[in-house]
Amino acid sequence: MRLNIFITGFSGSGKTTVSREVARRLGWKVVELDEEIVRSTGKSIEAIFGDDGEQRFRQIESDCLESVARKDRQVVSTGGGIVMDERNRLVMGENGAVVCLEARPETILQRLAAETQGSRSPIVRPMLEASDPMEGVRSLKAERQSAYALADWTVHTDHLTPAEAAEEVVRGWTALSGGTAEYADDGDLAAVVRTSAGSYPVWAGWKVLGRLGERVARIVGAAAAYVISDEGVYPHARRAQGSLEAAGIPTHLFFIPQGEASKTLDTAKLVHGWLADRKAERGHVVVAVGGGVVGDLAGFVAATYLRGMPLVQVPTSLLAMMDAAVGGKVAVDLPQGKNLVGAFHQPRFVLADLETLETLPERELTSGWAEAIKHGLILDETLLDSFEKDREAILALDRDVTADVIRRSVAVKANVVSQDERETLGVRVLLNYGHTIGHAVEAATGYRRFLHGEAVSVGMMGAAYISQGMGMLSDVDVERQSAVLRGFGLPARYGREVDTAAVSEAMRSDKKTAAGTIRWVLLDGIGSAITRSDVPDELVQETLQRLARRQPAGV
Amino acid sequence: MRLNIFITGFSGSGKTTVSREVARRLGWKVVELDEEIVRSTGKSIEAIFGDDGEQRFRQIESDCLESVARKDRQVVSTGGGIVMDERNRLVMGENGAVVCLEARPETILQRLAAETQGSRSPIVRPMLEASDPMEGVRSLKAERQSAYALADWTVHTDHLTPAEAAEEVVRGWTALSGGTAEYADDGDLAAVVRTSAGSYPVWAGWKVLGRLGERVARIVGAAAAYVISDEGVYPHARRAQGSLEAAGIPTHLFFIPQGEASKTLDTAKLVHGWLADRKAERGHVVVAVGGGVVGDLAGFVAATYLRGMPLVQVPTSLLAMMDAAVGGKVAVDLPQGKNLVGAFHQPRFVLADLETLETLPERELTSGWAEAIKHGLILDETLLDSFEKDREAILALDRDVTADVIRRSVAVKANVVSQDERETLGVRVLLNYGHTIGHAVEAATGYRRFLHGEAVSVGMMGAAYISQGMGMLSDVDVERQSAVLRGFGLPARYGREVDTAAVSEAMRSDKKTAAGTIRWVLLDGIGSAITRSDVPDELVQETLQRLARRQPAGV
Repeated sequence: MRLNIFITGFSGSGKTTVSREVARRLGWKVVELDEEIVRSTGKSIEAIFGDDGEQRFRQIESDCLESVARKDRQVVSTGGGIVMDERNRLVMGENGAVVCLEARPETILQRLAAETQGSRSPIVRPMLEASDPMEGVRSLKAERQSAYALADWTVHTDHLTPAEAAEEVVRGWTALSGGTAEYADDGDLAAVVRTSAGSYPVWAGWKVLGRLGERVARIVGAAAAYVISDEGVYPHARRAQGSLEAAGIPTHLFFIPQGEASKTLDTAKLVHGWLADRKAERGHVVVAVGGGVVGDLAGFVAATYLRGMPLVQVPTSLLAMMDAAVGGKVAVDLPQGKNLVGAFHQPRFVLADLETLETLPERELTSGWAEAIKHGLILDETLLDSFEKDREAILALDRDVTADVIRRSVAVKANVVSQDERETLGVRVLLNYGHTIGHAVEAATGYRRFLHGEAVSVGMMGAAYISQGMGMLSDVDVERQSAVLRGFGLPARYGREVDTAAVSEAMRSDKKTAAGTIRWVLLDGIGSAITRSDVPDELVQETLQRLARRQPAGV
Repeated sequence: MRLNIFITGFSGSGKTTVSREVARRLGWKVVELDEEIVRSTGKSIEAIFGDDGEQRFRQIESDCLESVARKDRQVVSTGGGIVMDERNRLVMGENGAVVCLEARPETILQRLAAETQGSRSPIVRPMLEASDPMEGVRSLKAERQSAYALADWTVHTDHLTPAEAAEEVVRGWTALSGGTAEYADDGDLAAVVRTSAGSYPVWAGWKVLGRLGERVARIVGAAAAYVISDEGVYPHARRAQGSLEAAGIPTHLFFIPQGEASKTLDTAKLVHGWLADRKAERGHVVVAVGGGVVGDLAGFVAATYLRGMPLVQVPTSLLAMMDAAVGGKVAVDLPQGKNLVGAFHQPRFVLADLETLETLPERELTSGWAEAIKHGLILDETLLDSFEKDREAILALDRDVTADVIRRSVAVKANVVSQDERETLGVRVLLNYGHTIGHAVEAATGYRRFLHGEAVSVGMMGAAYISQGMGMLSDVDVERQSAVLRGFGLPARYGREVDTAAVSEAMRSDKKTAAGTIRWVLLDGIGSAITRSDVPDELVQETLQRLARRQPAGV
């Protein structure tokens, strides 16, 4: 959709005032179509009506609309009668969003009466000066009402302040454009996440880190950047800094020690203090360059310093690209459990340079694929097809194929987050497929034996067995999942060395266990996840035993 | 406004589906008006049309609507033609919000074609079976369009999922009801704060602490409560606990050491750990019982534990009632400055028991009046009138008079927060009247010599002098402000013992100083604050000198 908003509606519905406020909020230009007509003809509306008649005026109006519609980033306040011509409706519909301001006849009369007489149009004036102005408004409005109703969005202005009405218009625009319009022409775009605080793009591509600075400048407009990273990805952090400085943004660098042990309130306090010493401001930006630990910690700091600073996520591990960097969940750990202290703080954008995957340790890359495959398993069978079909190209990090599956996998996550930003609607929980057992396995093994994705892989096999045991998933689909995971070098068992009782106990004390019942994410088909809270404990125990067995060659 | 939503719109606009989803979200009952008609007459719509004709059907429909409209907490899905009768529009308008679902004729035809034939009404069927169904939809819709346009809110469903459409309906309802409907009949209600996360009530009254438990049960529905308080208000904390337990809510108590020194990340970590040990869940509630330190710290913990728990503020100081408890700003301090780490986390409600003021030290009470008077000075001259007229009754804590001015003062704050929740629009900043100099005076004196309200009082005099020097405020108004403050025992000078150079320096290093320019909140009349960034430094220095002089008897 082109970046224009056409404001339609009857005289007195607030078009001029609201258009100005909308333009201010979006940083767009406001165009008063009547003024454009006066400018282009050199005659007043009055004079055009008087000299040439209404029909000629309508013609000029249409021409003028067409010429305005060729530009973009405009809020166009139109005349009350413009919607009557189908051609005009088409021009507006094809070049932006059409938002109608609605008001009751009583409201309209009041507002028109308050205007100075000089500003009244050749159509409004006779209506107001007739013996029954209310009837005049009613009948002209009724004539046009079907055409007004063809708008994309309607805002009733009777009980709203201009600021509130403008907010509704912007909201309509965001909903209609899906927030994608601003980024639509970018080849690296994986997805746009729609949230209550606005939309943000997720880019994933090869060698895109060099565009970081330019994008921060354009999207965040920050006067200083605070890059938070760890020593393990030092070269990436330096490149991020270089790109920011090349875009004219002064940059400071903070390295936290590598590893989960850094995800604490104490580390956060250090970074807070560092930001305070450098006099970081609300308009500056925190840039997280690293894996999940860096993203979570830097995100938590950005969420809380000065009650919230802009955040940009630059994930450098496959797992972080799939998981931590997208969706706004930021957190630190407590001794009592992981991620217990945190916030929802959406980034302004996510930039994933796939080149970072080339230097990622093999096992970490493998672990990341588990989450990517998970997105196919729960919600996108065609994505799973690609993981099967293109396995070798993906494992060889073939540029096009890898970029394609990563973007599609990120898009699944982005779509889920857009539908259920704060995990309150039962959609986002589907992302936890494999995580109930997975987290328990990690906890029972002290987070040392398995990488997160490996544990999730085992957990997904457990969830598949349970789905099978519940009569929801066929043997063929279970084997299909197992084959994909094994094909990417992921484990399907935790093996005999892990204490099944400890896994069972860890599952029970998980923070997501509401009032003792476990809400399982299961599959009732490939690409189709649902939740169930009625899984019998015997089935769970049986499944845990099964996961403890040595993995037979074929399963 | 009565708690009903009437969903109007043409057949195929999505009324049934969207109504169900809206009802689910609000926890209300869904009423399908056609089904009510069938139930009450014992005849199908078909049969009524066949036996008695459309006119009789319309009569029954109106009667049925009237009877449904007497109840509340309903989402009423109406028939497509109901809006044509003015009496029906009146009944709907008087008993709830009228939301019209709009759709283009093309969309309508598609949706109607997908329905089973049996479900088509006696009006829709002939239209679809005619030779040109599109024309049939267009013309019947056009006939009704003016009546649809009289709705309070319109949602175009063509490009929205049912869930998205439902969200827009709920949003409309919230905007229209101002969120006040749920609380309108409560005598203690001071204000309703409207925020992006929903609206919440602020209650202020005598002996209202006993209602805490019942309100937590009704509004939050929490299964456990964590009361955070300090030893200084031990009796209030105990009463809060008693009220919660009487309402059947298991309650845990945590006391932090009294004083600003508790507002740190380290104290927050202790409380986080305490919550983790007690297995606090997202659906439980944190209740802050105390002054600003408790409210800020407990609020920060609630904002961050499990990425956000419900919060209830029970302020026990006048300052906290006026300031910290309302508006969702929560924070802890860093060594580098106050409130540097925090969040915006709105409470679910605020309950201020004015009885707590009777045990408040005299000087703290006085300090609190400074902020209350400030609200009159910046935005509500009639409130300032009351502080002048009722001074003695207020100082004696006369029940009715005190409750009145406190509620009105809270309402000013609530209104500002509603307009500018996250301090981004330049409205909320007006609450900082007197704070530029006030904060600097506190910092320059190590937070020991002046209570916050006292420093703000001095700061307000400084801001008034600057307003006077800028030619915006008359001598009479400056003297009026000075007289009110002195009448409540508040200082108008910081005196010779304070180092003016230190105040000046502290002002320059304040975190709100963007790029070196101070944005002053000034008055251009009593009840009328504005911001100015062009105050000459000489005028500021002169003012600081003036505030350092010994206070003469009359000024």
